[in-house]
Amino acid sequence: MTGIVSSPARAVARRYGAAESVEPAAWNPVLEVLHEHRSVRRYRPDPVPDAVLRVLVSAAQSAPTSSNLQAWSVVAVRNTRRKARLAELAGDQDHIRQAPVLLVWTADLARARGLAAERGVPLDGADYLESSYVAFLDAALAAQNAVVAAESLGLGTVYIGAIRNNPAEVAAELALPPGVFPVVGLVVGTPDPTEDARVKPRLPQEAVLHHETYDAAGQTEYATRYETRLAHFYADQNLPHSWIDRVLTRLGSTAALKGRHRLREHLAAQGFPLR
Amino acid sequence: MTGIVSSPARAVARRYGAAESVEPAAWNPVLEVLHEHRSVRRYRPDPVPDAVLRVLVSAAQSAPTSSNLQAWSVVAVRNTRRKARLAELAGDQDHIRQAPVLLVWTADLARARGLAAERGVPLDGADYLESSYVAFLDAALAAQNAVVAAESLGLGTVYIGAIRNNPAEVAAELALPPGVFPVVGLVVGTPDPTEDARVKPRLPQEAVLHHETYDAAGQTEYATRYETRLAHFYADQNLPHSWIDRVLTRLGSTAALKGRHRLREHLAAQGFPLR
Repeated sequence: MTGIVSSPARAVARRYGAAESVEPAAWNPVLEVLHEHRSVRRYRPDPVPDAVLRVLVSAAQSAPTSSNLQAWSVVAVRNTRRKARLAELAGDQDHIRQAPVLLVWTADLARARGLAAERGVPLDGADYLESSYVAFLDAALAAQNAVVAAESLGLGTVYIGAIRNNPAEVAAELALPPGVFPVVGLVVGTPDPTEDARVKPRLPQEAVLHHETYDAAGQTEYATRYETRLAHFYADQNLPHSWIDRVLTRLGSTAALKGRHRLREHLAAQGFPLR
Repeated sequence: MTGIVSSPARAVARRYGAAESVEPAAWNPVLEVLHEHRSVRRYRPDPVPDAVLRVLVSAAQSAPTSSNLQAWSVVAVRNTRRKARLAELAGDQDHIRQAPVLLVWTADLARARGLAAERGVPLDGADYLESSYVAFLDAALAAQNAVVAAESLGLGTVYIGAIRNNPAEVAAELALPPGVFPVVGLVVGTPDPTEDARVKPRLPQEAVLHHETYDAAGQTEYATRYETRLAHFYADQNLPHSWIDRVLTRLGSTAALKGRHRLREHLAAQGFPLR
């Protein structure tokens, strides 16, 4: 674990890009690792051995799963050419090439479909939109446990949502059978210290935590406060980004989805009819 | 943190319901907490103070989020009558009533929609199926960090997928505006030690971890091996469950979805057209 943080209050303040914070009610090595998360986009080539991968996956399997369905699988890609091909398909992100392994987390209803076929029984529930969310959520919970496990070992990670830009080609590259769909990629490796990846500040807690009922009041104020804090964060790195502009651009148009506007047809082709 | 485990190899073996396991390549308090996860379904009434809740949510906000959209919110419900009402709506699960707080994790595109409305710009990307997955995944990653944080503090948790059984009524109870949808509930509280919640074994790791490409061979054998291990686990508790039967029942029919077959129309009504 990192041992970088000077104090728990400092760690929480940094997470919010705030000048100061009250001392959190509790602190321990787990909370430290969680709060210290940063996305790493520059890697050293040092391998992630199979034995380490196995610990990440047993941590992933320890995550909760809806009705114990375990409706996910993960494909570990280390082959240089396959990794390069997936990098091309997923927004040409160079860190996929740099890092020793790309984990592709998949929604997996093929296992259940196989069991149903063997018994000759229907599996009508699997055809619904709901079951795709179940499988996507199962994959996400497992992947996030793997992230926490990796970071506890000093490894860096970054999710690759762009694995959904070209899902048909990704499915072909990974030989995913019907019923299996790529949800998210996860790069894992040793952080290149020259990147100096930072903890990115988040929205004020009041913006996301509601008590008893959803409180829409104040959202403009929270966004404005965050805009200022994040501009300060980016200015330190000579980046001129506005959070609000980025959100509005990212969700503003069909084109900004980079192919993902066709997700429904890609899911159907891969055996998810989404009734 | 728990300090229950006699050895890392024992913790990993228990996760797989195996008689023995090799020593994992690495171990630390974070890996211990992750592997020790169990769903808790009996709670003591001890409150979860606001200060503790704030740490759980700052841990949740520390999770990765797609393009830093932070497309989620959480509603903390402590009111006894509201909690009882939500318990009724979510499969009548008594642990929702017992525990001091139910966290309802939501997919939240309302924040982005509000910013777009203020600027008078379109937000066409938010209308797509893809953006619902982005928001569901964001909510899942945040929720899972909160689970890990809670368990590191000795608290128990259990997810409530049944919060999606009656999403219109849940949205009304929590005053969720258009663009906000309940993804999953999370009960948090002090475990009642009389329950003696156990670590539930998972599928053999070979069933979920694939190398380079998806390997469909062996899935029947892994499921059979798991069926035996899980039967052994359940037998200890005088429960006759078969994993395969449970999977086939859970996904076998429209009726088994308990209302969730109508998710598409509920999402549309709540401002998610899923283009």
